[in-house]
Amino acid sequence: MIYLNDFELFPHLRRISPSWQNYVAHPFVEGIRDGTLPDKAFRYYLGQDYLFLIHFARAYALAAYKADSLSDIRDAALGMSTIVDTEMALHVEYCRDWGLDEPAIESLTEASTTMAYTRYVLEKGHQGDLLDLYVALAPCVIGYGEIGARLAADTTARRNGNPYSSWIEMYAGNEYQMAARTHAQTLERLWLRRAAKGRLEDLSQVFEEATRLETEFWQAALDAV
Amino acid sequence: MIYLNDFELFPHLRRISPSWQNYVAHPFVEGIRDGTLPDKAFRYYLGQDYLFLIHFARAYALAAYKADSLSDIRDAALGMSTIVDTEMALHVEYCRDWGLDEPAIESLTEASTTMAYTRYVLEKGHQGDLLDLYVALAPCVIGYGEIGARLAADTTARRNGNPYSSWIEMYAGNEYQMAARTHAQTLERLWLRRAAKGRLEDLSQVFEEATRLETEFWQAALDAV
Amino acid sequence: MIYLNDFELFPHLRRISPSWQNYVAHPFVEGIRDGTLPDKAFRYYLGQDYLFLIHFARAYALAAYKADSLSDIRDAALGMSTIVDTEMALHVEYCRDWGLDEPAIESLTEASTTMAYTRYVLEKGHQGDLLDLYVALAPCVIGYGEIGARLAADTTARRNGNPYSSWIEMYAGNEYQMAARTHAQTLERLWLRRAAKGRLEDLSQVFEEATRLETEFWQAALDAV
Amino acid sequence: MIYLNDFELFPHLRRISPSWQNYVAHPFVEGIRDGTLPDKAFRYYLGQDYLFLIHFARAYALAAYKADSLSDIRDAALGMSTIVDTEMALHVEYCRDWGLDEPAIESLTEASTTMAYTRYVLEKGHQGDLLDLYVALAPCVIGYGEIGARLAADTTARRNGNPYSSWIEMYAGNEYQMAARTHAQTLERLWLRRAAKGRLEDLSQVFEEATRLETEFWQAALDAV
Repeated sequence: MIYLNDFELFPHLRRISPSWQNYVAHPFVEGIRDGTLPDKAFRYYLGQDYLFLIHFARAYALAAYKADSLSDIRDAALGMSTIVDTEMALHVEYCRDWGLDEPAIESLTEASTTMAYTRYVLEKGHQGDLLDLYVALAPCVIGYGEIGARLAADTTARRNGNPYSSWIEMYAGNEYQMAARTHAQTLERLWLRRAAKGRLEDLSQVFEEATRLETEFWQAALDAV
Repeated sequence: MIYLNDFELFPHLRRISPSWQNYVAHPFVEGIRDGTLPDKAFRYYLGQDYLFLIHFARAYALAAYKADSLSDIRDAALGMSTIVDTEMALHVEYCRDWGLDEPAIESLTEASTTMAYTRYVLEKGHQGDLLDLYVALAPCVIGYGEIGARLAADTTARRNGNPYSSWIEMYAGNEYQMAARTHAQTLERLWLRRAAKGRLEDLSQVFEEATRLETEFWQAALDAV
Repeated sequence: MIYLNDFELFPHLRRISPSWQNYVAHPFVEGIRDGTLPDKAFRYYLGQDYLFLIHFARAYALAAYKADSLSDIRDAALGMSTIVDTEMALHVEYCRDWGLDEPAIESLTEASTTMAYTRYVLEKGHQGDLLDLYVALAPCVIGYGEIGARLAADTTARRNGNPYSSWIEMYAGNEYQMAARTHAQTLERLWLRRAAKGRLEDLSQVFEEATRLETEFWQAALDAV
Repeated sequence: MIYLNDFELFPHLRRISPSWQNYVAHPFVEGIRDGTLPDKAFRYYLGQDYLFLIHFARAYALAAYKADSLSDIRDAALGMSTIVDTEMALHVEYCRDWGLDEPAIESLTEASTTMAYTRYVLEKGHQGDLLDLYVALAPCVIGYGEIGARLAADTTARRNGNPYSSWIEMYAGNEYQMAARTHAQTLERLWLRRAAKGRLEDLSQVFEEATRLETEFWQAALDAV
C-alpha cells in the first residue's frame, strides 16, 4: 500500500474511521483469506455485486458530469467505460463459473444493504461536490485494493485449494492496484483544490458512513447463508 | 380511505405491490394497534424517524426544485415548510415524552435501513422526474394515512391504556389525512400529465422498492429490541 | 455596506471580479438613478424578472436540498418561502402598476439572457456544492443590496418625480438589506467550513461568470427598447 | 433524412416548433452553404463550439447517470467517450487549421449564448427525466444531421473553393448521420416507455426552447464579426 505514504487525505480518513478495521478485516474477508467462506455467501455477494456495479458505473457518470476540467471528465469517463465495457463482462463470466448465469443475475432482487450503500454514494454525490463523491467511493475502490494486497501478502492465507484465490489475485493484481492508486491521487488533487482543514470533519463523516455501509454489504452476504 | 376511489394511479400501484400488505400490516403496526409494541422498539423508531424527517424535508425541497409550474413549486414548498417549521418541533416534543431529549436525538447514528429508504427516494428523485419522486414518497405519505385511518376505525384496537393512541390519532387526524390526500392528488395530476400506461412498469417498481424499504424500516425497530 | 468589513469571502470576490463595476454601475442602473431609463426597458426588465423569480425560488429549493444541517435547510426554506409566498405577489402587484397584468406576464417568452443566468446558477448548484450555489447567487442577492444602498445614499440621484424611486427604496430598505446580509453571512460560514485558499480561483470564476450574466440581464433590457 | 418517417416523436416536435426553420436555415448555415460566411464568424463559432463540447460530454455523462437500464447506460457512455476521446481531438485539429491553436482555445471566454444553451440542457436534464434530457439535446444532435444532409444534397451549394466543405462533409457523412439516427431512436424508445400524449406539450416546449437557444448560438457568431 505504497500510497499510504504519498498522500494526505486518504490515510487520514482511513486512520480516524472507527469502522475501517471492521471493514477490511470483516469475517467475510477472513473467510476469503482462509477459504472457509460458505459458497452460498459468496454467490449472494456476487449477485449483489453485479447490481452494485450498475450503480457504480452511474456514480462515475455522475463524477464525469460534476467534473469541471477536461482531464477530470476524462478520468471519470474512463472509470465508467471500464466498468460497463470490461468489468461487467468479466463479472458475468466469473458469476457463471460460480453457477450464476445471466438470467439468474437479472432476476435478482436488490438487497436493502446494496441500496443503502449505492444510493448513499450517488445522493451524496448530488448533495456535495466531486470531492464528496470521490470520498464516498473511496472505501470501496481503495479498500478493495488494500484487502487484495494484504491477503496476497499474507503468508497465513490459504493458497492451495482456496476457491477464492482468483478473487484475491484480481484485487491484488497490478491493474486493480493502479486503479485504486489513481483514485487516491484524484482524491488528493481534489482535496488540495477544493477543501481545507475545516472540511475534514464533514469528509470524515462521509468516509465513515460509506465504510459502515460497505461493512454491512459484507455482513448481508454472511446473513444470507 | 375515500381517495382510493377517486384516483387511478395510487390505487393501482397499491394493488399490484407485492409488499403493500406486509408494510401496512407489519408486526410493528400490529404492536401499535394492540399496544404490545415494546417501548424500546418505539423509541428506536422515534429516533430514526427524526433523522428520516430531515431527509424527507430535503425530498420536498428537491420536489420544489424539480417542479415546473408555480403551483407545483408552492405545493412542494409548503410540504417542506410544514416539516421544518412544524413537524420537527412536534416530533422533538413527542420524543421528549418518550424519554428522548434533543441531545440524545442529535447523537443518534443513522441506521442503514433509514439510509436505504431516504437515499433511495432522493436518488430516484434525481434520476427520474417529479412523478418518480412523488411515487417514491407515496408509500410513506399515503401509507401512514391508510394505517392511521384503519387503526382508528378498528374496533379490535386497544383504546384504554394504549401508549400508542396518540400516534394513531395523529395519523388518523384530519390534518394528516388531508396531507395524504393532497399527495395522492398531486400524484394523479402528474400521472395524467407526464406518464402513459407504458410507464406503469417503471413506476410500480419504484413504488414496490420504496414500500419494501419502508417495511424494513419498521423491521429494524423490532430488531433493535 | 457594513458587511464589506465583516467578512472575508464576499469582499474578496467582489474586489477581484473584473465585471463587478460594470454590473453595479451599469447604464441600466444609472437610468434608474437619474430616472432616465426608458419605460419600455423597465417593463421588459420587470417581465423577465418575474420569470427569473421562479428559477430563483427553485435555486433556494436546491439549496435546501443540498444543505446538510437542519439550520441550513431552514435558512434556504425561508428564502424559498419568502419568494413564492411574498415576493412574487408583490412583484405581480408592482408589474400591474407598470401596466403589466398577470396574463401579459404569463405569456412572456423567457429571454436567453434570463435563461443563461438562471440555468447557470442552477446547474452550478448541481455540479458543485452548497458554497458554489451561494457564490453563484451572490452577485444578484448582495449586488442588488449594494446598488439599492448606494442609490439611496447618492445625493445626485433624482428624487422628485423619479419613476424608479420605489425600486430604489425597496432594495435600500431594511428588509432587503437584512436579506442581503444574511446571504453574505451564510456565504462566509460555508467558506470557512467547506473551502480553502486553493478553492478561491474556482469560486472567483463562478462569481465572475454570474456577475457577467447579471450584467447581460441589465443590457438585454436596454437592448429591448 | 430517412428517420423522419420511421419515428413519431422527433418528426412531430420538429414540425410544430416555431423556430425550427429559423434554426436549420439560419443565415449562418446559408453562409456555410454558399461559402460567404466570414472567416471571423466561423472562428468565433469554432471556439465556442469547443467550449460547448465540454458541456455536451457532461450532458451525456448525466444521461448515463440517469439511465436505468444497462443498455441505456452503455449508449450514453459511448456518446460521452466519443466526445472526449475522439471528437474533441478532431475539433482541436480542425481549429488549428483555422488558426486557433490550443492556448487560444483554452483562453476563450464562454459566451452567454453558449452558456444559455448548454446550461439549459443540463439543468433540464436534472429537473426532468432522461427523455427531457434527450429532447433538449435533439435540436443539436439531429439538427446538425439534417443540416449536413441537406447542404450535401443541395445542388446550389458551392462546392469548389468553399472553405466550409469539410464541415458539410463531416455532418453529412455516414458516421455523423448514424449518430443522429441513434439519438432519434433512443428518443423514440424513451417516448414510448416514459411518456404519453399529455406530455407532448411539455416536451415540445423543451424542444422549442433548445431550438431557439441553438439559433442564438449561430446568431452570436454572426454578431461577433
